[in-house]
Parts: sequence; C-alpha cells; structure tokens
Amino acid sequence: MFSCWLSRLCRGLSTPTGRVTHLIQGSLSRRLMLSSQRRIPELSSFVARTNTCGELRSSHLGQEVTLCGWIQYRRQNIFLVLRDFHGLVQVVIPQDESAASVKKILCEAPMESVVQVSGTVISRPPGQENPKMPTGEIEIKVKSAQLLNTCKKLPFEIKDFVKKTEALRLQYRYLDLRSFQMQYNLRLRSRMVMKMREYLCNLHGFVDIETPTLFKRTPGGAKEFVIPSREPGKFYCLPQSPQQFKQLLMVGGLDRYFQVARCYRDEGSRPDRQPEFTQIDIEMSFVDQIGIRSLIEGLLQYSWPSDKDPVVVPFPSMTFAEALASYGTDKPDTRFGMKIVDISDVFRNTKVGFLQDALSKPQGTVKAICISEGTEVLPVFPKANRNWNSPVAKSIMEEQRSELIRLMEIQEDGVVLLTAGEHRKACSVLGKLRLECADLLEARGLVLRDPALFSFLWVVDFPLFLPKEENPGELESAHHPFTAPHPSDIHLLHTEPKQVRSQHYDLVLNGNEIGGGSIRIHDAELQRYILATLLKEDVKLLSHLLQALDFGAPPHGGIALGLDRLICLVTGAPSIRDVIAFPKSFRGHDLMSNAPDSLPPEELKPYHIQVSWPADSEAERAH
Amino acid sequence: MFSCWLSRLCRGLSTPTGRVTHLIQGSLSRRLMLSSQRRIPELSSFVARTNTCGELRSSHLGQEVTLCGWIQYRRQNIFLVLRDFHGLVQVVIPQDESAASVKKILCEAPMESVVQVSGTVISRPPGQENPKMPTGEIEIKVKSAQLLNTCKKLPFEIKDFVKKTEALRLQYRYLDLRSFQMQYNLRLRSRMVMKMREYLCNLHGFVDIETPTLFKRTPGGAKEFVIPSREPGKFYCLPQSPQQFKQLLMVGGLDRYFQVARCYRDEGSRPDRQPEFTQIDIEMSFVDQIGIRSLIEGLLQYSWPSDKDPVVVPFPSMTFAEALASYGTDKPDTRFGMKIVDISDVFRNTKVGFLQDALSKPQGTVKAICISEGTEVLPVFPKANRNWNSPVAKSIMEEQRSELIRLMEIQEDGVVLLTAGEHRKACSVLGKLRLECADLLEARGLVLRDPALFSFLWVVDFPLFLPKEENPGELESAHHPFTAPHPSDIHLLHTEPKQVRSQHYDLVLNGNEIGGGSIRIHDAELQRYILATLLKEDVKLLSHLLQALDFGAPPHGGIALGLDRLICLVTGAPSIRDVIAFPKSFRGHDLMSNAPDSLPPEELKPYHIQVSWPADSEAERAH
Repeated sequence: MFSCWLSRLCRGLSTPTGRVTHLIQGSLSRRLMLSSQRRIPELSSFVARTNTCGELRSSHLGQEVTLCGWIQYRRQNIFLVLRDFHGLVQVVIPQDESAASVKKILCEAPMESVVQVSGTVISRPPGQENPKMPTGEIEIKVKSAQLLNTCKKLPFEIKDFVKKTEALRLQYRYLDLRSFQMQYNLRLRSRMVMKMREYLCNLHGFVDIETPTLFKRTPGGAKEFVIPSREPGKFYCLPQSPQQFKQLLMVGGLDRYFQVARCYRDEGSRPDRQPEFTQIDIEMSFVDQIGIRSLIEGLLQYSWPSDKDPVVVPFPSMTFAEALASYGTDKPDTRFGMKIVDISDVFRNTKVGFLQDALSKPQGTVKAICISEGTEVLPVFPKANRNWNSPVAKSIMEEQRSELIRLMEIQEDGVVLLTAGEHRKACSVLGKLRLECADLLEARGLVLRDPALFSFLWVVDFPLFLPKEENPGELESAHHPFTAPHPSDIHLLHTEPKQVRSQHYDLVLNGNEIGGGSIRIHDAELQRYILATLLKEDVKLLSHLLQALDFGAPPHGGIALGLDRLICLVTGAPSIRDVIAFPKSFRGHDLMSNAPDSLPPEELKPYHIQVSWPADSEAERAH
Repeated sequence: MFSCWLSRLCRGLSTPTGRVTHLIQGSLSRRLMLSSQRRIPELSSFVARTNTCGELRSSHLGQEVTLCGWIQYRRQNIFLVLRDFHGLVQVVIPQDESAASVKKILCEAPMESVVQVSGTVISRPPGQENPKMPTGEIEIKVKSAQLLNTCKKLPFEIKDFVKKTEALRLQYRYLDLRSFQMQYNLRLRSRMVMKMREYLCNLHGFVDIETPTLFKRTPGGAKEFVIPSREPGKFYCLPQSPQQFKQLLMVGGLDRYFQVARCYRDEGSRPDRQPEFTQIDIEMSFVDQIGIRSLIEGLLQYSWPSDKDPVVVPFPSMTFAEALASYGTDKPDTRFGMKIVDISDVFRNTKVGFLQDALSKPQGTVKAICISEGTEVLPVFPKANRNWNSPVAKSIMEEQRSELIRLMEIQEDGVVLLTAGEHRKACSVLGKLRLECADLLEARGLVLRDPALFSFLWVVDFPLFLPKEENPGELESAHHPFTAPHPSDIHLLHTEPKQVRSQHYDLVLNGNEIGGGSIRIHDAELQRYILATLLKEDVKLLSHLLQALDFGAPPHGGIALGLDRLICLVTGAPSIRDVIAFPKSFRGHDLMSNAPDSLPPEELKPYHIQVSWPADSEAERAH
C-alpha cells in the first residue's frame, strides 16, 4: 500500500509551532488573580505537634516546639534528622546524664520509627549551617521525647535515590507514599482539583452533582464491569462515564453540572491504563463549542500550579483534517515542528515506479517529513550522502530536488523521510516516525520539547461516523452516539453520513489527549434517527434518554478532562500510576492487598452466579 | 422479660436539653466569618443568555437581555412566564403585526418547551406588580424569540403543588429535578460540600485523595457487592468505606487525608438506604478524640448554610452508658426531654408481683418516662384516671406515688410509661416509646422538636466488643476491628474484654447518627491480638494492613460523616432520596433506566461466570 525510506539531505532547523501568548485582559483576569491568592493553611491545628518539621526557620529561634515525625537518619548518636510530610529538621540528641532516657529513646529507635520530640529551636553553631536544607539554619535542642511506634526492618529504604522495582513499590505502597515525589504528586493533584472546584462552583455557579456508579449497560458498552444483583440474572454495570446522567441533568434544568467522577473501563491488561480512573466531568445548557472551550481555558489557567509557567489562553485550534495532514495524528504534539509535507505535486511526472503507482490510486499521495540534524541519529543507508545518491534519491531529477528543498526547507544534515500511499495511512506512518525521531534526537541531547512548555491545542471538526472496523459497510460513532452533527453538514446526514463532521472537540496537551467533549443532540427525532437508522443500535436500552429529549431538553454540551493523565503531564511523572495513591498494576491487580481475590462460594450465592472454570484451570485446581 | 403499661397522672412540661450557646471567640472565628463572605458566582458566563430569569429586578430596567428557559405558563396569549433554575420572569408577548412570527412561536409552543427570548427589561404597569414574585416589579418586552425545543405531553406537571407518587417521580427523574425543592436540595448539597472542602483543604491543609473502589473483600464483609474479573474465580469487591486505605495513607505519611467518598453496601431492600452512598471521609495522624471532635465542629460551623441558624460549638457529649440510660438509644434526640428515669428504688419493697420479679433478677430495673400532655394523645386504659386507679396504679402505695411525682416531675395531664426488666432492654423499649409519643404529640399540634433547631451531640465511650448475635459466647467488634481500646481499659483486654470501652465516637444530629469514627490501633501486636485471638478473624485477608503497622505507623484517627443523611436533615427532606440526583428505589432499582438489567450471556463469558437460575425462575423463563 505504501513504502517509506530515508534520504540524506541538508541541515535545517525545526520551526516551533506559533504559541499564542496574550493573557485574558480586563476584569475577569484580575479577578482570577486575586482569588488565587490563598491563605496558607494551618498544618498543625487539632494535633499533638506545634509545628511541622519542614517549616522551622531562623524566625522560630527560641520557640518551644513539639514535633512528630519519622527518624530519617542518625549521626553518631549526636544528631537525628526527623521527617514529616513537610520536610526535614535536625534534632540534637542530649548527651548529659539527666537526659539519659531521652537519649536512649532517640539512639535506640530503628530508622523510620515514629517519635514525638519537644524542645527549643536554636541556631546551628557557626559554620554548621546547611544551605541545601530549608531548615538548615536551625536545629532542635530536645527536652523530652516519646517513641510513638517502632519500625521493623524495611523492604527498601525511604530515600528518593534508592531505586526499587515498580512491583516492590506497589506491594509496599504505604512506604512508597512517604517519598518526596509521591507526596508532591498527590498534594499537587489535591490542590489543583480544589482550584478547579473554586473556579467552577464559586466563580461560575456550577453545581457539583454525584451520579450513580451502579448503572446498566450502555449500547456498545463492552468493556463495562458487571455487578450481579440479588435478582437472578439481573446485573448492574459500572459506567465508563456519567454521560447519560449529565445529559439528563440538563433536561432536569440543573443548567451547569460538574463532578470529579470515578469512571470504569475493563480493558484487560493495557500499559498505563487503570480499570478505574477519574475525570473532571462538565455539562452546560445553552452553550456552544466556543463557550465550552473558553470555560476550559479559564479553568486550566485558574487551577494551574503556581510553580509552573502560567497557561496562556486562548489555546490554538486545528481541524482534525489539518492535524492528520500535518502531524499524522488526532493529538499532535505541537511543541516542535517536523510537520508532514505533501510532495505529491513534485512527483506527478516521476518515473519512479512505486511513486507512480501510489499516485495513480484514489487518495494516493507522496508525503515527507524533514528531520533536522537527522544525520546524527538515523541509520541512513550507508551509500546515501548529501549528493542525493541514496538508492531512491538517485532517481530524483534535479528539478524535483530543488522543489523539495524549497517546499520542505531542507538544510544541511537534515534527513527526509518519504512515504507514498493512501493519504490517511501515509500521514499516520509519518506521524509515528516524527515522534520516534524526536525521541532519538532527544536521546542524543537535542532539546526539541522544552520540559517546561505546556502546549495546549484544540482539535475540532472530527468526522461524526467511522466505518466499523469489523464491517466497513456499517457505521459507528467516532466518539459516542449523542454527539451533535456540525450545523453545516446536517443536510448530508441522509445522503452521505460518512461526510458529516461532528461538534466534537478534543483537548490535546503535548501530544496527549487530555479531554474531549461535544455539543450534544437535543432533538429526540434526530437522536432516534442516528441511533436506530444509522447506527442500528438497540434503542430500548436508551428509551429513558430518548424520552427525556421529548420533554423539553435544552441545547447542551460538555466535556470531560482525564484527570490522571493531566496531573501526570503537569508533574512530569513517568506513569499515571505515579499520580494515583493506590493504582492497579497493568494486569489490574492491587499488588498490596492482592485484589482481585478468590471468594468462598457461599458469598456468590446471594447473587445467583457461579464460576465457569475454564477446562485447564479446572485441571489446575484438581492438583 | 419485661412489661410496660400506662398510668394517667398529672400535667407537666418537658425540659429541653441544655443547649451550649457560646460561639468560638477570637481570631479563628473571625477568620471563618471572613472567608465565608464569598463572591456571587457568574451564572451566565460562556452561554447564550445575558441573564438568568430569576435575577432581574428594577435595577435592570432598560437593559437589553437575552434569556433562555422553559415556558411555565401563558395567560391569554398576552403573557408568558419563563422559568430557569434561578426563578421566574414575566414576558410580554408582542401583539403588533410586525412581530407576528415572535407571537406565533410564543403562543404555539407547548408548556415546558424551551425558548430563547431577547428584549428589554421594562416596569410593569402601575398596579400590576406582583410582590410575591422576586421579579414581580419588571417584565420583558420581547423583540425576538427562538423555539429551542418543543415539549410533548408530560406525565405530570412541573409544579410543586402537583402531587405525584414517588415511583412516578423516580421514573421521570429528569422532570422531577426541575422542581424548586429538588433544585434547592441539590444546590445546597453542592455548596455545603464545597465549603467543607474549603475548610479542610484551604484552612487546614488536608489532602483530597481518591482511593480505589475496586478492592477485595474485608473480613466479615458480607454486604459487599462483588465484581468478577477476567481471571477465573477472582473477584473485586466494592468497599463499604475507604477504612483500610485511609489508615494506609497515614502510614504513608500523608498526615491529613479527606475524601468525599463513594461507598457501597448491599443490604437488599431497606427503606431509606441506598446501595451506594457518600461519606465525608477524614483521617489524621497524631490526633486524639478531642482533636477530631474540634475539627468536625469547626467543619460543620464553617459549612453550615447561611439561611439556617448558625451552628453552636462545642457540641455537648454523652457517654454511651448515659445515652442508653436516659434516652434508651445510642443516638438520642436531645431536642426534647421526656428522659428515662430509673425508679427501681421506689419499688424495692413493692408487693406488685411482676415488679418484684423483675427487680430480683440481675440487671433488673424499673424505668419510666413521663409524657407531658400525654392524656391528649395516648389511648390510656379507659378506667385509668388522675386518681391513680389504673389497673396497676391501684397497687402503688401513697408513699411510692409521692416519690414518683418528685422523681419524675409529674404534673397534671402527664402520662407515665413504666417498664420493668433488664436494664438495656427496658431502656431500649422506653426509648422507642419516647419517640413514638413525641410523634403523637406533634401530630396533635404540640411542638416538641423545633424544626429550626439542630441539636448535635457526641456519643462516646462505646463498648469495644459485643457478644455475637448468633453465638453470644464469641465477640464481635461493636464498630470495626481497627478501633483502639480506651486507654483506661487496656488492662482488661486480656481478662474481661467485654468490659473494655473503645475510643469510638458517634456524632448525632436530632436523633440521627450522622457520623462516626475512632482513634485507630497503630500497634501491630495489639491489632493482631484483637483480630486473631479475640475476634478469630482470618488475619490473612488483612496481612497488608498488619504489615503496614509494623513499618512505622503513626498514631492516627478519623471519622466519616454520612453526607446523604446530613443533607437530608439540613434541608428537612422526607427521605435521603430527595437529596440524591438519581437514587435507587428501596429495592435497589433505578426506575428511570431500569437498572439492574439482564445481560446477554456472551457479556458474562469474559468474566467466567454464569447465572444460577433458581428453580422457580427457571420455570418462569421457560414460559
């Protein structure tokens, strides 16, 4: 269908995608700024300590404090470093006879034991300050100490530099949570969600509404966990999203709904997916695409952590067709260039067989990307060189060469990757190669994607339907069956449904889809036509929703942001498992508690189910 | 075991329970007040309207506005009342020829259709103002109108005065949600939870952490829904609370955790319970009972709706033993008196046979309550009268009568209900009668329980263990096996475990348990002893928690507030179903969507389960 190869050309620089840099001006912006100036929370209210370990500074000198924490390490029975969630502080172990019991406690307790100490904040002796430690100017002169709990020998040390396998980290998750990184990730997540709530509830009047998770299966809802009920043969299902409920809330006149919603998807074993995950789920009445997009831009700007570069709005947007043509994907990473260029015209009269072949077919194209400095990293054909004498380049005529250099801005040390084939597939292949080349270049030390840069992008104008994979003659929803068609394309619904664009929009961050939503169908007839006639779904399963649309449903739309992925990108964590307190392994296991687990048969009885043991595991059990 | 009867005596007044009325003084209080002065949210940002229907006043006169809403009613094709979530507004239908199309739209749309109108805010003509309507001084002179959706004939009218059965309301929940009461309940719930979050996160540094709902069964965890996994015979369970996870978070050094947590309990059909419910779940390290209680008092005070009387702190507290003795329950309604009085001493030398009998047994007592104005409501023995000549009172000697009048403050028209029997059972019976009598008196128009009064109470010092119902020789946890014993009673654990009090505390509001928690066991040895030796539980299921306690677990404690019940009490709703957007019926059905539902057998295959059809339903299916 298509082929691709490498050609060694000249060197060039990738053009970074234009970044819109103006901030919202005027009163809204100022108001957002003001309300983000929050009070510092009281971290020691209601508890046995007076202060946290991490907060003590020279300004506390002379204060009598009580601290609670874990023994991080001990030096020659003279110093002890105490740790809590807030930081580390140095404690001086008293050496005089009268404090023998205190000394005994502090010198004998194993590392990671929990102690409470009371004493005075004093300056460290001149020259002994530790500028690398936020509390490095002071230390605690201890008067009394209490051992709150001892610690047995640990499976690994609670030190960030100690490497451990992820399986071990997950098995002892409660120990892994003590690490700086996990504390940072979970606390940032909590703060960011709190600010999102402030923005939605307090600034824009959204109502936080909880929707059920014991629901029924949805059409096409494979991947839904099932829960047997006490009625024989009747099952609840765990929903993949609160989609139906949020639309019903709009019919119910709630006007502005949001929820930090737990969702469920049983995809079996997939890397970096979780069987339960969280989305910021939003729905509004009387809104259009631009309304939802502005809301979300404001939401992210308002909730963005203050230790990161501020978010710049509005976000750029791109149609699905453009994203595919330029980046070969519906979630372009726009932090760097290397865009796909259509070079079909250059080769209209080519003599090269497979190019001729590709171009003669419907949708046939020749596409290419230019990897600047690609010669550094790509295993270019040994005979290829800057004189265009690679196996294929030899057949490219001088005129075509100049045209390529002009079109693709090829410079010395650039490598061109060229593909011929059907438009969509050609783009898709080059899109993947583009990302792989970026990885290769970065592994060699080039910075293509600034780690401090957060590049948001709206992708819009998706197709409403796709051909079914298993049966391309039939249609399936590109996203879900409640998505409204694009107003300009409604006339095509009865004639050329495959050509209809939708009012779906995706939010992309650094090449990751972090959210998606749409304007919904609020017309019952249109919804019935799409479900029954075009999609051939069982309408009975959705009769409540169709009926609701008959009873005065307002126009409405919404979006859902994938919270786990978003926090993962913000914190720079290597996996979503690092921003979830108790994640499952990629096989869906809780390695700490050993869930899922066997159940005694009598616990299945009330639910009228029994296990169907596969033949081989039956045999295994017999052993 | 015991008996009770009525005796007609003299009239008296119930003494209301003392109510502590001082507010927290000083800086904390002022700070709480300040931060509760919130900005009014923008309710029309990002959408097609300029204003909500309910917000328009004389101050908007002359403004050009666009409104979106539902047609509430129409008068003689001249006026139309438009409704949105915020209120009602009167729209004047234009009568001149040039606006014929606008008139047509507004006059022909059925009730509850959705329209958008644009026009000018004008004063109502003098004399036509409606002082009962917040927008009653103005009306909208319409220039343009758009029909956004028509409404078919409704199953019931969207008017609060139209009564409908609860089954119908649940079937058309999206219509019921348009009622004033449901909008009020859900919006109050959202606001109150938001303020709780502000208090916990922003004022006190709590971390909002999501814990898994795909977990494994817990010891004694019948009532847990099961979810088959793709591994044959392996099941997840939906947890009844995040108890284990929150304790593990403390071991993980998170220090202050909270979550608005979805919990699951499969209790079959029970009135006013839901298979999924929500709790405000809290855990802290280095805290004691008083710390948790102060935190919760502050939380409720801070989040309390401003349209209710403010919450007064600290809440009174009472031991479990006192609650039982005075109110016959562990959740006393302290809004009124009628306390239980022990009158055993009055009858030490009685000749009445069944009283003698009761008092001769261990724990034998005679107890009574006095119902003031009880003669109004109680079906007193026809022969009983104020001369003490009821069947039993006749046998009571003059001395005993005077002593009873003194002890119980009996006044004219009072009725005494007397019980003889074992302490706990006698109290329990009188406790129930006390509440039933209060209902009877209130049905007759007496106000015993001020509907504006919120009477909070801590109940403390519960027993740690109870005898198992099915086998009283064995022990079970009164609450759960992680509850710490009372420090004064630890020495009894090895000798008289039944006598050990716990560090559990319940929060009671107007006779309803709205929360409970405890200081937890943080010592692994003690936890193992209680689980394995005293409770004889399968320790393997909890090995991860026991191991965690070995690795430096801090002392910790927490609480969970039942959010649905709390909001139900605050709003005065008749059922928790009225504060949940999409509740299940008492049989656990979603009457709107028809969950739980049948599943095609192929959807059970990946989970290696099959339905065990009971014999009779097998027969039914064959038909």
